[in-house]
Amino acid sequence: MDNIRLSPDSKSVFIIDQTLLPNEEKEVELRTLDEMVEAISSLRVRGAPAIGICAAHCLCALSFSVKSKSKEGFISALRRYTSVLNSTRPTAVNLSWALKRMLDKAYVTPIDEIRSALKKECKAIYDEDVAMCLSISESGLSLLKDGDGILTHCNAGPLATSHYGTALGPILLGQERGLNLRVYADETRPLLQGARLTMYELMKAGVNATLLCDNMAASAMKRGWINHVFVGCDRIAANGDAANKIGTMGVAILAKYFGIPFYVLGPSSTLDLSCAVGSEIEIEDRDPSEISTKHYVKPMAPAGANCFNPAFDVTDHSLISGIITEKGIFRPPFDFSHKP
Amino acid sequence: MDNIRLSPDSKSVFIIDQTLLPNEEKEVELRTLDEMVEAISSLRVRGAPAIGICAAHCLCALSFSVKSKSKEGFISALRRYTSVLNSTRPTAVNLSWALKRMLDKAYVTPIDEIRSALKKECKAIYDEDVAMCLSISESGLSLLKDGDGILTHCNAGPLATSHYGTALGPILLGQERGLNLRVYADETRPLLQGARLTMYELMKAGVNATLLCDNMAASAMKRGWINHVFVGCDRIAANGDAANKIGTMGVAILAKYFGIPFYVLGPSSTLDLSCAVGSEIEIEDRDPSEISTKHYVKPMAPAGANCFNPAFDVTDHSLISGIITEKGIFRPPFDFSHKP
Repeated sequence: MDNIRLSPDSKSVFIIDQTLLPNEEKEVELRTLDEMVEAISSLRVRGAPAIGICAAHCLCALSFSVKSKSKEGFISALRRYTSVLNSTRPTAVNLSWALKRMLDKAYVTPIDEIRSALKKECKAIYDEDVAMCLSISESGLSLLKDGDGILTHCNAGPLATSHYGTALGPILLGQERGLNLRVYADETRPLLQGARLTMYELMKAGVNATLLCDNMAASAMKRGWINHVFVGCDRIAANGDAANKIGTMGVAILAKYFGIPFYVLGPSSTLDLSCAVGSEIEIEDRDPSEISTKHYVKPMAPAGANCFNPAFDVTDHSLISGIITEKGIFRPPFDFSHKP
Repeated sequence: MDNIRLSPDSKSVFIIDQTLLPNEEKEVELRTLDEMVEAISSLRVRGAPAIGICAAHCLCALSFSVKSKSKEGFISALRRYTSVLNSTRPTAVNLSWALKRMLDKAYVTPIDEIRSALKKECKAIYDEDVAMCLSISESGLSLLKDGDGILTHCNAGPLATSHYGTALGPILLGQERGLNLRVYADETRPLLQGARLTMYELMKAGVNATLLCDNMAASAMKRGWINHVFVGCDRIAANGDAANKIGTMGVAILAKYFGIPFYVLGPSSTLDLSCAVGSEIEIEDRDPSEISTKHYVKPMAPAGANCFNPAFDVTDHSLISGIITEKGIFRPPFDFSHKP
């Protein structure tokens, strides 16, 4: 089942609802802008590349509801949709990248062909993501050998992308080729993408996978079980500072302490040249209830507890052994001021 | 409400059931050895000092059910109870320390006076813990100044001890004296003692407290919010290596990275001279269901997922800025080969 696809008439988008995993693998149909915004905001679809792919498909579907007969009016409607979709999640750069690419395509297309051009463009974004994932997976796999242990944080697998994934790509490709790898998945609080999604994807593929709480990563490292850390990314600054799911920076600091190489894997569209350094990356703060009550039978914190709930953190480039994009493996010192 | 107390006839023990917090503050009565074992194993009572205090009270209560008329038989029955209670949790040294102290008292007491001697002894253990907590709190408080931010992990407050607590003691004492402190409580997966118990104790005392997921501690440190880390401990080796709740070692590594002093607070009974180094400390592995299903409405990991669930980790002495016991603040290099 594709995790993101257009309906047969292209007027809506089907996604696998990631909030229902691992208990249910079920598609939801997104018909209206409101449904699309809700799906992205509430993480029914998540993962930086998947958010970009989904938003592109949404804009294509929404183009069928544009009534304007003038090119100017049509573009103006698309811009309104884009602006709303763009504001759903602030941190992942792929969202604005994919939407800008769709809009750019619309600008240069005669009005009668905009819908079919957008359909082609979102398919191209999807297909390029598949190729990108495969390329990243090959590069990452070149670092692994039989028996290696890999720690990963959050989910950067097929669900977060199109196919293979980024951080999980080398592992899934290695599994297909008969490599024996041991994978340790941080559960990734508060939304448990590691427990719910990464474990689901790894177990489905038959990978030897072990789940652990985020605060157990140091123990796994100390026991000598971890040879590499592979994580995804949501935005990379020109100096190599990388924003990813909250907790990634802590894992990177632990890896440094234990002398374990730490790799960031993602498409080159994750590079944001407009950010010179990581401190310029906006970090999304999410609702306290994700920490205190979500998923639980009863509240797990006293009513009214203050919570600090940043969705991402920025790992300093000095902690990163390599950044792997579809263009290859980049080693420090990183300089992406001219996009590779 | 005392968190641990003998029933009026001394034949049973009442404890506050910590598994029900923060939603319910309720006592449970422990009448039989089985109920006592269950209460300690399932963490209805937890925290190294509290486990010791509780076990001592349990042994006193159980002494009322000993039928033997000979001293040898009486002691032999107590030894059997002790052995079972001792095996409930392997990591905290206070458990065996308190039980040995109770048994030693029984050995030197005429048979007719054993029960009253044990009653006095468990009260003495409790009272000494109160004095110990106050002394630790004073020492810890000497390190704090108005406006400081303190990160803590797990729960080492009144519930984990007798009164004030160890890691929370300086904070609660400071609050009583009108100091403005900002406290950040790691939720402490998988059993959420930080969210459930530490936040409950801090909010009850009116402390400015913020809850965060374990994987957010690095972000709080990076933002400059944390001036000190205070944690409790379950066992300290002669070289200063300290076992505490899983995740503590990771926090210590982060604190080192960010240049934040990291303090371990606990009674001197936590020092275990029989352990030269931390690697000799046995680490309790707990059930995978604590990670995958416990507390949740639905399972949060695929059925059959492998889990790594160590209850504790050992923080290397090189990461510790000071160990605070009732005897004062010990600074590196640590040498507890002769108990202070």
